[in-house]
Amino acid sequence: MSHTLEELANYVGGRVEGDTTCVIDSVASLGTAGSQQLSFYTGGKFKQAFSGTAADAVIVSSKHANLSSTNLIVVENPMLAFALIAKKLNPASVLSGIHPDASVDPTANIDASAYVGAQSVIGAGVEIKAGVMVEASCVIGQDCVIGENSRLHAHVTISDKTIIGKNAIIYSGAVIGSDGFGMANDQGRWIKIPQLGIVEIGDDVEIGANTTIDRGALDNTVIGNGVKLDNQIQIAHNVKIGDHTAIAGCVGIAGSTVIGQYCTIAGGVGITGQLEITDNVHITAMSLVTQSISESGAYSSGTPLQENAKWQRNYIRFTQLDDIAKRLKRIETE
Amino acid sequence: MSHTLEELANYVGGRVEGDTTCVIDSVASLGTAGSQQLSFYTGGKFKQAFSGTAADAVIVSSKHANLSSTNLIVVENPMLAFALIAKKLNPASVLSGIHPDASVDPTANIDASAYVGAQSVIGAGVEIKAGVMVEASCVIGQDCVIGENSRLHAHVTISDKTIIGKNAIIYSGAVIGSDGFGMANDQGRWIKIPQLGIVEIGDDVEIGANTTIDRGALDNTVIGNGVKLDNQIQIAHNVKIGDHTAIAGCVGIAGSTVIGQYCTIAGGVGITGQLEITDNVHITAMSLVTQSISESGAYSSGTPLQENAKWQRNYIRFTQLDDIAKRLKRIETE
Amino acid sequence: MSHTLEELANYVGGRVEGDTTCVIDSVASLGTAGSQQLSFYTGGKFKQAFSGTAADAVIVSSKHANLSSTNLIVVENPMLAFALIAKKLNPASVLSGIHPDASVDPTANIDASAYVGAQSVIGAGVEIKAGVMVEASCVIGQDCVIGENSRLHAHVTISDKTIIGKNAIIYSGAVIGSDGFGMANDQGRWIKIPQLGIVEIGDDVEIGANTTIDRGALDNTVIGNGVKLDNQIQIAHNVKIGDHTAIAGCVGIAGSTVIGQYCTIAGGVGITGQLEITDNVHITAMSLVTQSISESGAYSSGTPLQENAKWQRNYIRFTQLDDIAKRLKRIETE
Repeated sequence: MSHTLEELANYVGGRVEGDTTCVIDSVASLGTAGSQQLSFYTGGKFKQAFSGTAADAVIVSSKHANLSSTNLIVVENPMLAFALIAKKLNPASVLSGIHPDASVDPTANIDASAYVGAQSVIGAGVEIKAGVMVEASCVIGQDCVIGENSRLHAHVTISDKTIIGKNAIIYSGAVIGSDGFGMANDQGRWIKIPQLGIVEIGDDVEIGANTTIDRGALDNTVIGNGVKLDNQIQIAHNVKIGDHTAIAGCVGIAGSTVIGQYCTIAGGVGITGQLEITDNVHITAMSLVTQSISESGAYSSGTPLQENAKWQRNYIRFTQLDDIAKRLKRIETE
Repeated sequence: MSHTLEELANYVGGRVEGDTTCVIDSVASLGTAGSQQLSFYTGGKFKQAFSGTAADAVIVSSKHANLSSTNLIVVENPMLAFALIAKKLNPASVLSGIHPDASVDPTANIDASAYVGAQSVIGAGVEIKAGVMVEASCVIGQDCVIGENSRLHAHVTISDKTIIGKNAIIYSGAVIGSDGFGMANDQGRWIKIPQLGIVEIGDDVEIGANTTIDRGALDNTVIGNGVKLDNQIQIAHNVKIGDHTAIAGCVGIAGSTVIGQYCTIAGGVGITGQLEITDNVHITAMSLVTQSISESGAYSSGTPLQENAKWQRNYIRFTQLDDIAKRLKRIETE
Repeated sequence: MSHTLEELANYVGGRVEGDTTCVIDSVASLGTAGSQQLSFYTGGKFKQAFSGTAADAVIVSSKHANLSSTNLIVVENPMLAFALIAKKLNPASVLSGIHPDASVDPTANIDASAYVGAQSVIGAGVEIKAGVMVEASCVIGQDCVIGENSRLHAHVTISDKTIIGKNAIIYSGAVIGSDGFGMANDQGRWIKIPQLGIVEIGDDVEIGANTTIDRGALDNTVIGNGVKLDNQIQIAHNVKIGDHTAIAGCVGIAGSTVIGQYCTIAGGVGITGQLEITDNVHITAMSLVTQSISESGAYSSGTPLQENAKWQRNYIRFTQLDDIAKRLKRIETE
């Protein structure tokens, strides 16, 4: 699967500086790349690695083109060009057919071009569309739909009636469509409220390992097109996430919260229930969001890391903060 | 599975206002419900949805009975009445028998009314009681007991000797009885301490998707009756959780901590080890608990979300807080 | 599997005080131990339990030897001695062979002394070394290597090309080698960057239930020898963790961060990407680390738990902290 530098530059709409006939067969990092390998540079701390790289070629933007004497593909968005070329040079393996050790309900409708791996269990009435890959040991409950060219890695659980769009990638251990945490309180005891909605997932969605997305209580939980979810995210019932929003690992979003489009939510953030977060909101790591956000922008909460001994002194003062403010006010008014 | 409004009102000890003969066959949210559908209203932001609903009937308390002209079931606790009616109208599917693709040890004792799904693995000496449903791809280790009418969703792992009470619901990806994180330090190297206790789970417990509950080191980890655990909770070895306590997603509880009855712990809370939390304690989202709590009540930690630029200025001041307090004191004494 | 106290003391390099011929067949906690049982005491709140224990013998250090009249094994490190004796008295069960309900690719190379459990799936080219135990329902992707005497509990997922050293213990639901969260942005849309590195895991590593470790983007994700990871930890692509570092539950570490040797990271900590943390760093629970740490020591962030009403007042003052500092400065300069 090798290409000339010129072919690859054309593929991503870039231009070659250097030897257009140079042959590339794989990608690697600046520090490890060598003969027939392509790397990329986007600035920052890898400047020295770039200038000293043994890569046969590097993808850069025009502003960094003069920093190295190796062959270059010059493009506007080097990271994007790298993603596209790396994919071209490393096509995903494609299988079709049903492994003899899978358990498939006779009423499931599995396209002839799709694949179902060993020990997977496909329930009644499931629709598996063209080009889908269901790896080993997945469980897909009744009446689910898995859209064209989606890929479920090993050990994915999809509960009854879940609808997944095209080109989804769902990683191992993800659980889609489990019951939400809905209960009525009866004099101290908790009584389960049946969870009757479903999960609807758009096209081009990525769902990380061990991420959980609960089905709706009455209406549905909805994940928009192009949404990217990292590992170990918890999405509660009736949450809606707008198109092209990306969420990093270990985020928890409580019930019925609606998140806009093109947001980025960093790792470990918590968002309480029933909130509305508008489009283009960016939230930094481990922040807690307890109120709706109606203006785009970056938001944060939390306090800085310090050496434990220094932190202890400031930490305890936090409990006196209201008192400090009042005493200051008193002095000001005197 | 349809009922008259009168039948449903009687079932939950309520009274009908309107057409007692109205036929209901399903439940839905206020905004989507229509003919033959029942919804509920408990106040708050859904007032307009309630007054404009096309639902044939709505469950309310007497204080909201005048807000809509639709048929009503009037009860003291509408949420509870809704939970009970929704369950009555949506009975869980019941299967029995052992799927031919399951692997069941010949010494396991599985009640004839129980179900074991495809690809599940049941170990030696396991007791599976009447009415239990073990869905696809579960693994139950040796000598476990699963109490009457409990349900394990797909991909649940129950390790050796775990005891689970009646009516449990355990969601996909949950791991019960894994070894605790117990180690001795030998000049910098960590040496595993065998984890010889078990997990004991009471009756009527719900355990969320991808939640983990470790077995005890020597004594047992104990989850009380009626405890409800959401998704992605981590419960370490020798934790004890009192009856009817509810814990939201992404909470972590460290080893040997004891939590009382009727507590609520919101999402993302962390509780360090060896603590005692009394009954009726309520902890707000993402708080960190590092000391025992001996008085009932609500507790919190953390700082507010702000626009990033404003937050940056306050954030850095936190490192000066002890200094600020001392300088204020100095001014006061002058 | 019983031994005299003298045999056990010799085994851990300790000395007996009391009856050297006393026979021990199991270990238990101070409060529950009885005849033929051994416990341990390391100080602190269990003093009364120690002096009143019905255990036939207790492991202690010399400084606590006078606190009880029971038989003693006196050693320098009682916790370590207990770990070693508990393991000796409770040897892990050993199986070998391939369960008939496993799916094993014919090109996989499985040592005759290894075990593969029911419903497990072993991919092409996998090497499973001597003494390995793969429990039920694991999935091991193509070309992985599992080192001597490692044990995979039920429902573990190991993705293609992962390399695991000797004596690993990997608990249920762990996912090793899933794709990292790497994307290029194309005018608001996210384009996946193929994740072409692998995960390399050293010897003597423990990986907790539902923990996830992503494969590298280009270079590898590396977990050093003797590293101990608790449950529900998320380790992103290209992270490197130094030998003998221990990480508690629910920690998240973002991409390309490098953590030194002999560190301890408490539960719920978040560490952002591209950082370098030196050796012997200790981070307290739920801290957020956003900058590299070049000096060994203990570090913390966060604010204390308070009763909700008191906390509310301090919480809101945090948004005024920069203003408070400036007003104080103004008064000082007047």
